[in-house]
Amino acid sequence: MFASDNASGVHPAIMAALADANRGHALGYGADELTARANRAFKQLFGDQAESFLVYNGTGANVIALKGLVRSFEAVFCSAESHLWIDEAGAPEQFLGAKLITLPAHNGKIRIDDMRPRLGDIGFQHRSQPRVISLAQCTERGSVYRPDELGAFCDFARAHGFYVHIDGARIHNAVAALGGDCKRLFTELGVDVVSFGGTKNGLMMGEAVVVLNPALQAQYPVIRKHGMHLASKMRFLAAQFLAYFEDDLWLHNAAQANAMAAYLAERLKAVPQARLVAPVETNMLFVELPNDWLAPLQQQAYFHVWRADSSPGRSEARLVMSFDIERAHVDAFVARMGQLAAQEQ
Amino acid sequence: MFASDNASGVHPAIMAALADANRGHALGYGADELTARANRAFKQLFGDQAESFLVYNGTGANVIALKGLVRSFEAVFCSAESHLWIDEAGAPEQFLGAKLITLPAHNGKIRIDDMRPRLGDIGFQHRSQPRVISLAQCTERGSVYRPDELGAFCDFARAHGFYVHIDGARIHNAVAALGGDCKRLFTELGVDVVSFGGTKNGLMMGEAVVVLNPALQAQYPVIRKHGMHLASKMRFLAAQFLAYFEDDLWLHNAAQANAMAAYLAERLKAVPQARLVAPVETNMLFVELPNDWLAPLQQQAYFHVWRADSSPGRSEARLVMSFDIERAHVDAFVARMGQLAAQEQ
Amino acid sequence: MFASDNASGVHPAIMAALADANRGHALGYGADELTARANRAFKQLFGDQAESFLVYNGTGANVIALKGLVRSFEAVFCSAESHLWIDEAGAPEQFLGAKLITLPAHNGKIRIDDMRPRLGDIGFQHRSQPRVISLAQCTERGSVYRPDELGAFCDFARAHGFYVHIDGARIHNAVAALGGDCKRLFTELGVDVVSFGGTKNGLMMGEAVVVLNPALQAQYPVIRKHGMHLASKMRFLAAQFLAYFEDDLWLHNAAQANAMAAYLAERLKAVPQARLVAPVETNMLFVELPNDWLAPLQQQAYFHVWRADSSPGRSEARLVMSFDIERAHVDAFVARMGQLAAQEQ
Amino acid sequence: MFASDNASGVHPAIMAALADANRGHALGYGADELTARANRAFKQLFGDQAESFLVYNGTGANVIALKGLVRSFEAVFCSAESHLWIDEAGAPEQFLGAKLITLPAHNGKIRIDDMRPRLGDIGFQHRSQPRVISLAQCTERGSVYRPDELGAFCDFARAHGFYVHIDGARIHNAVAALGGDCKRLFTELGVDVVSFGGTKNGLMMGEAVVVLNPALQAQYPVIRKHGMHLASKMRFLAAQFLAYFEDDLWLHNAAQANAMAAYLAERLKAVPQARLVAPVETNMLFVELPNDWLAPLQQQAYFHVWRADSSPGRSEARLVMSFDIERAHVDAFVARMGQLAAQEQ
Repeated sequence: MFASDNASGVHPAIMAALADANRGHALGYGADELTARANRAFKQLFGDQAESFLVYNGTGANVIALKGLVRSFEAVFCSAESHLWIDEAGAPEQFLGAKLITLPAHNGKIRIDDMRPRLGDIGFQHRSQPRVISLAQCTERGSVYRPDELGAFCDFARAHGFYVHIDGARIHNAVAALGGDCKRLFTELGVDVVSFGGTKNGLMMGEAVVVLNPALQAQYPVIRKHGMHLASKMRFLAAQFLAYFEDDLWLHNAAQANAMAAYLAERLKAVPQARLVAPVETNMLFVELPNDWLAPLQQQAYFHVWRADSSPGRSEARLVMSFDIERAHVDAFVARMGQLAAQEQ
Repeated sequence: MFASDNASGVHPAIMAALADANRGHALGYGADELTARANRAFKQLFGDQAESFLVYNGTGANVIALKGLVRSFEAVFCSAESHLWIDEAGAPEQFLGAKLITLPAHNGKIRIDDMRPRLGDIGFQHRSQPRVISLAQCTERGSVYRPDELGAFCDFARAHGFYVHIDGARIHNAVAALGGDCKRLFTELGVDVVSFGGTKNGLMMGEAVVVLNPALQAQYPVIRKHGMHLASKMRFLAAQFLAYFEDDLWLHNAAQANAMAAYLAERLKAVPQARLVAPVETNMLFVELPNDWLAPLQQQAYFHVWRADSSPGRSEARLVMSFDIERAHVDAFVARMGQLAAQEQ
Repeated sequence: MFASDNASGVHPAIMAALADANRGHALGYGADELTARANRAFKQLFGDQAESFLVYNGTGANVIALKGLVRSFEAVFCSAESHLWIDEAGAPEQFLGAKLITLPAHNGKIRIDDMRPRLGDIGFQHRSQPRVISLAQCTERGSVYRPDELGAFCDFARAHGFYVHIDGARIHNAVAALGGDCKRLFTELGVDVVSFGGTKNGLMMGEAVVVLNPALQAQYPVIRKHGMHLASKMRFLAAQFLAYFEDDLWLHNAAQANAMAAYLAERLKAVPQARLVAPVETNMLFVELPNDWLAPLQQQAYFHVWRADSSPGRSEARLVMSFDIERAHVDAFVARMGQLAAQEQ
Repeated sequence: MFASDNASGVHPAIMAALADANRGHALGYGADELTARANRAFKQLFGDQAESFLVYNGTGANVIALKGLVRSFEAVFCSAESHLWIDEAGAPEQFLGAKLITLPAHNGKIRIDDMRPRLGDIGFQHRSQPRVISLAQCTERGSVYRPDELGAFCDFARAHGFYVHIDGARIHNAVAALGGDCKRLFTELGVDVVSFGGTKNGLMMGEAVVVLNPALQAQYPVIRKHGMHLASKMRFLAAQFLAYFEDDLWLHNAAQANAMAAYLAERLKAVPQARLVAPVETNMLFVELPNDWLAPLQQQAYFHVWRADSSPGRSEARLVMSFDIERAHVDAFVARMGQLAAQEQ
């Protein structure tokens, strides 16, 4: 189905690693050998300066990541369409106590110029003090910040004393699309903290807060527990990441999902009733479809309607490719479209 | 090792259930069939009125459970030795915003009489308003509230408009010790919400907030997400609980741990240097040992020193039995004590 | 000056009442006779069902008022230009923990239709649950909701289980403009809680949280202390309000400020360089002026530039009339404009 | 009456200063000349490094002071009998989100040795990280930390990376008793932030957060607004403090209250039924009295019963001397005791 990349299951290699990790006793709360190895794996990915803190899910990763960057009288810039603002049920407001300043999303991405009017708030006692720029990479629309774009955000942040946080729930899709490595794409640009996703790309459950700024690292062990995300049997989170990084499984999974999105986009060219809302950059497509196609297509491969009645008689659907989607699934979906088109004539 | 019941691994039946749950796609966030079945299993356990909300860990279960019971200008009674007060890194204060009122622990248990002086705070504008009694069953000392004791707390709570919360991180050990069923031990007594543990008794990870008071249930789905504990691939939490309840695996696991604690206590009678601090009621022993025995015994089976130098030359050790401890482990541990005793002569 | 209505001083009758209240000892925290009399005065104003809780300032009034209406996993609708969203330095986010959902401001006012898309969030576990509509009466632009408009908000709120809060930092200007009484304008429409201002209309300091919904009142004494706004020598807040209501001083003050705004608006018709951005409804004018007029006019009567460079070569100024502004001040200000216009020719 | 030092009124010089400050318009939120002068007065008192932030009341002062010192995953040491812990209705827990670690009170004072067991929490991820020592000077029992005692706390704090906060709701009584100046008594010892009271010693309302540690000052303007304690007409807080410091009025007021407490203590020596619970150090007496004396004595001069039935047939009363208490009041109170004693015979 195309509902979400967390509707997929667990990659077999991850499942095997979990079974393998289940040997005897191990000290809890991260004092085990697998967790130590997972931390080394993150260092290999992001550079030696990185420290990783495994957590359970993406909301936890985002909120815990930000907790180390912002105090309650400060503020976080984010997109008005971001998961952080829309889909965390107010967890950031409660756990951070801080204001989220929403900026307009342009195909999911925010712009530096939209932050400038708020620079006047710095030192003005009536306003939450801007402190963090939170960027989703890739965004909730599947779009990707190019390295030069992300670098410009980091430079802007440094110039004004801000931190940069990456919501990387789908960081794998972005890294696969950009063909680069995490050192070059994040660490060297000056990103401070990354929420590193895994659940949407073949893990059973597990994300990591990867702290690249060494000055900020010491506080995160307590913040994670304070944030209710310290796993007692942490080896079972660590084992998943070790298998995930083995032989670049994570990038292969993401590349497959991205490729299937590109393939579907290509095939949709032959379906005039399906209008791609934006170019496909990673594993998600936003496609406007006739309203009476929605139910039959959802039966073929379930998906969410993103904007009902986005234009007269039509709605915008979100189609998300998971690591386990193959050409046959896409072909069947497009074939169903063909049937629907034929019925209409 | 005897460090903690979360140092143990995953019970094979649980691991098998996880592998089994890994078939195809499933809707996320609890909209899958396994989660629905797990909820029915909790209803079978606690009665039809129960609704369960699966979460990742015990801190999350406790804080989310309490969030539905207390507002920030209200207060929660708990033991001064409770995990809630001591070992949650301030998560309750931050996420609830409420005051925890600590009461003296008598072998881990609190007493109704110690709450009475705070009844005068009701309606007094300078004081956080008492609202919840949080009881650990079993307690952090392994002691158990008898049903009549727990019932008295529930009656006291009702008389004053309070709610009753159970921190059941080791609820299995208590239920196994009391030989009863959850309906009789919790629901019928008038408990409002239970944090139902699993990780310490053979699960990989997973606890449940079980809301017994129907008037309170509607708010918990949002509270769980707000509390950062909504799992996207929830079927992998649900599958564990389904296997856990199958053929009463959870009670068999707990009974084994309890039995090993009793067996160790029995064998310690022959070791005069080892003084049991309190009678063993569940799966934990607190034993005072000579300081120079600590290191060699920890090498035999690692454990935590609970109170260093609790008396001259001696320290109190906490020995926790997991579901997978067997007589041979206990025998080897006691044998090591015998060697140490022999060396001293 | 026209900077703000809190730049003005204390009305002489208020100052006299403070001196008068300073006799002997009185029990603190509101247990004095003057506070009891002030509460009766609020009942006379809003109806017997009202209970008033005196606080120090407007931020406190708003946040404490809302604290009784919203839990942290719920949300408050407010205008994107509201003081609540922009000018409280994140106090609502921290003290409520709740999300503020901003709606577009149309000359300061929000619209019911802009809330409808969020109705789908009700019961959707990923979203903060809408619970309160917060309306400024008059708004930060000086505009006023007519009784039928406010009534429609109250009906909409009731239909969806929401509460209605009024940010009445300038409620006096609105009531004076609408020529009505508070019973008709708020209580009978179904408003739940009012932040009742005073500081901007002749008090030294002091506002009131007026709770009209009886079901909500019991919790506010503790919420006020919890919100850090319980005055020990409360008689000195109460005495101000008693003098404020005596012989409708509050309405006379507000009517004078409103009249001076209307008078200035009338006189500006003869100044083509000064463009009134919106019709004047209460005591504030938003006027677009040539940029090179700003400094000399500010010297004449200081005011804040609301939007710099709102159009080429021009900026929008906010001119606020206080209770103590008289025709002579307005005449002098317009005369200065005349001089500036003459110099340009 | 002897109920509390906030039951007294406003000193005439303060009231005159308020009337005097009421001239024309002044910019709000502290941008006025009187506030600048008040800040200079605090610098004269505490040294040039001090910056003062005026607030409305003691709860606000304490919580705002601490907000700059502690994050929500950190903790504050305070006495188990402190106002901070007992009488702020949970404001610290909500606004700071942090844990208060209570220490036993010895005649109101805490001891360094009682903090040592918590040093092990530093760096231990399961525990709120100790960060601040909050000391009341004088304490809620009227006792005073000697400079060498306070210095030892500051040294201990520095050694462990903690901050020191003074709850100075009655700082005037302590300074008057110690006969010293604030530079020597606080600044030079290394105190970081002081909540400087005023309301209990002749002000109408008003306290100050005095930040002595220059590295911490920049954040306090926003924290004060965030903490809902930014007064718009701040000149009326500033004017009070200016009069308060003029000719050491504040110390004269406090010395009078202290002297009356000492005088009452002296006279009680002749009343065997009245047992002084602790030596009198400032302006408060805790006196155990026969229960049947309470009502008639409260009628003579109202006071609060601090511990009912503290011993059989007797209760502990708190008698607080205000700045306006004179010998005649004390004499009349003791005379009433004489009558009661005579009746008993």
